[in-house]
Amino acid sequence: MSKGAKDTVTISLDAMGGDNAPVNEVAGAVETVRNNENINITLTGKARLIEGELKKFSYDSSRINVFNAEEIITMDESPADAIRKKLDSSLVQGIKLCRSGNADGFISAGNTGAVMAASLFTLGRIANVSRPTIGSRFPTEKGITVVLDVGANVDCKPAHLLQFAVMGSVFANHIYNISNPTVGLLSVGEEKSKGDAVTVEAHGLLQKSGLNFIGNVEGRDIMKGDTHVIVCDGFTGNIVLKFAESVLSLLKSKFKDYADKSIFNKFKVGMAYGTLKNILKDFDYQEYGGVPLLGVNGVSIIGHGRSSPKAIMNMAIRAEQMVRAGINDIIAEKIKDINQFITKSE
Amino acid sequence: MSKGAKDTVTISLDAMGGDNAPVNEVAGAVETVRNNENINITLTGKARLIEGELKKFSYDSSRINVFNAEEIITMDESPADAIRKKLDSSLVQGIKLCRSGNADGFISAGNTGAVMAASLFTLGRIANVSRPTIGSRFPTEKGITVVLDVGANVDCKPAHLLQFAVMGSVFANHIYNISNPTVGLLSVGEEKSKGDAVTVEAHGLLQKSGLNFIGNVEGRDIMKGDTHVIVCDGFTGNIVLKFAESVLSLLKSKFKDYADKSIFNKFKVGMAYGTLKNILKDFDYQEYGGVPLLGVNGVSIIGHGRSSPKAIMNMAIRAEQMVRAGINDIIAEKIKDINQFITKSE
Repeated sequence: MSKGAKDTVTISLDAMGGDNAPVNEVAGAVETVRNNENINITLTGKARLIEGELKKFSYDSSRINVFNAEEIITMDESPADAIRKKLDSSLVQGIKLCRSGNADGFISAGNTGAVMAASLFTLGRIANVSRPTIGSRFPTEKGITVVLDVGANVDCKPAHLLQFAVMGSVFANHIYNISNPTVGLLSVGEEKSKGDAVTVEAHGLLQKSGLNFIGNVEGRDIMKGDTHVIVCDGFTGNIVLKFAESVLSLLKSKFKDYADKSIFNKFKVGMAYGTLKNILKDFDYQEYGGVPLLGVNGVSIIGHGRSSPKAIMNMAIRAEQMVRAGINDIIAEKIKDINQFITKSE
Repeated sequence: MSKGAKDTVTISLDAMGGDNAPVNEVAGAVETVRNNENINITLTGKARLIEGELKKFSYDSSRINVFNAEEIITMDESPADAIRKKLDSSLVQGIKLCRSGNADGFISAGNTGAVMAASLFTLGRIANVSRPTIGSRFPTEKGITVVLDVGANVDCKPAHLLQFAVMGSVFANHIYNISNPTVGLLSVGEEKSKGDAVTVEAHGLLQKSGLNFIGNVEGRDIMKGDTHVIVCDGFTGNIVLKFAESVLSLLKSKFKDYADKSIFNKFKVGMAYGTLKNILKDFDYQEYGGVPLLGVNGVSIIGHGRSSPKAIMNMAIRAEQMVRAGINDIIAEKIKDINQFITKSE
């Protein structure tokens, strides 16, 4: 499955997915091929609309293809219904291009649940993976922290958390080049005995997993950046992720309220704003290239509905990295190892 | 249990609890009696140490008492062990003063788990309350939001979440003067069907509860301030609370990194810092007067280990409000009503 550094990687891009589709998707595709000589893009969606947008740019037309798909899955549709009924949607067709080998990876800024469901249904799971998971990078004081699961699995068993830890470690190792990444278990206290029933049991599994497990970490540790991979159930992870994303909006609103109080405040905020913006760009999820769905038999990345063209490009680059690293083969190997290890030691 | 506006309320204060005890506790006690003519304080702890600190201030000595207690429960002790073995600790003795009627409420910046355990053990639960809960106020774009549970109960049943909603509503109504407070259920999507098994079932209970239930809210909604009371299990709530508390430290660290890059940056950050500090004071948990333990048969409030004298005073004021409002009688009434309602409608 992996490709050499010079082979061209083709990424299928759901052109109708995001809030501003297909405008940002088309601009993102153009930005991608302009800046990455070994990534080609296939845009899936309403061909006439897409081609209308493409006309606004000059680019190497041999590197962006359009694959017509007439249907659109909207943000508020039920994922299960949508992927069953809308087989000719840009989302489903984009993933099918991966299965048929016409694309190497898929990216979408569309309905998260639908991307998960269609990826799982169309591509299947990697052997021995019980539950595919979504990992998200968090802004930290230093270094890289990937939290998973952030929403694919709301009710988890201890063994699921163990598998998330394996997949997150492979991702941190092969995508962020962190050797022997540290793994923490998100809980409510550092001691092994702290946590809900699932967490306490998962702690035991992680201890004998052979991963670089450093024990429980707390909510306050996520942004410290001392732990490379933090595992939790998708209920907790999703709530923390969405909370984190809202911090930027709260700060902006607070700055605005303060500025509105007086001309002098307005001046001070004006002085501060550039600085703040610069500092807060770590909170800007556009930079991170979307969240990967790990554990499916293919490369599938989900971005924010409001992804900018740059965010789209970053998602394409992330997908390319995952393809070149052959990340799924490595996950398959590690999951096999750990399943044997856990079974043996029990 | 409630007191008139002119009666004096006596608060017992664990003088050995916080990271800087008894210095901040004693200063907080003095600040309290200076600024609040109807609150008296009884400091519990090593009398010699406390009296040594008290000598540094001039204050009305009839309004601050010292109750000697020789033992200290430290932050890292196991709560269960500590409260069993250290019966003559400042923490346990402070709560006992409430049970014996020598104090009307108790506050501590000490070991959270020990305060919870000792309060529950010594004061008991309000009739029909299954699980006492800790509620915390979050900073929001506007208005007041109380999230509960934030750590007292890691594994919850749907009926527990319902009781948290009742206690949170009473608190929001009688302490923050919000009539008919809105109640949200923290989950991973707005639809009733979204969430883990416990949340989905709790949704059904809340719908027929007679509370002002507005449905599921997500992580991003916590700081919007549109919902007065948000309920969740203590595992999720604790992780989100500690994450939120770490935001301030991340921002400070980011500002410092940026300033360290150049003299010009340093100047810009210098200009911005006052503004930022002003704006971020909403993230400063010192202002909020600690977190109340709701559902125990008495008033017990827990503060941060690093509580300042001002934070201690705010805790004493909050305890006084809870005593004057007779909040536990109201909780007892509402919990009885809701238990009957739920039983009837099933």
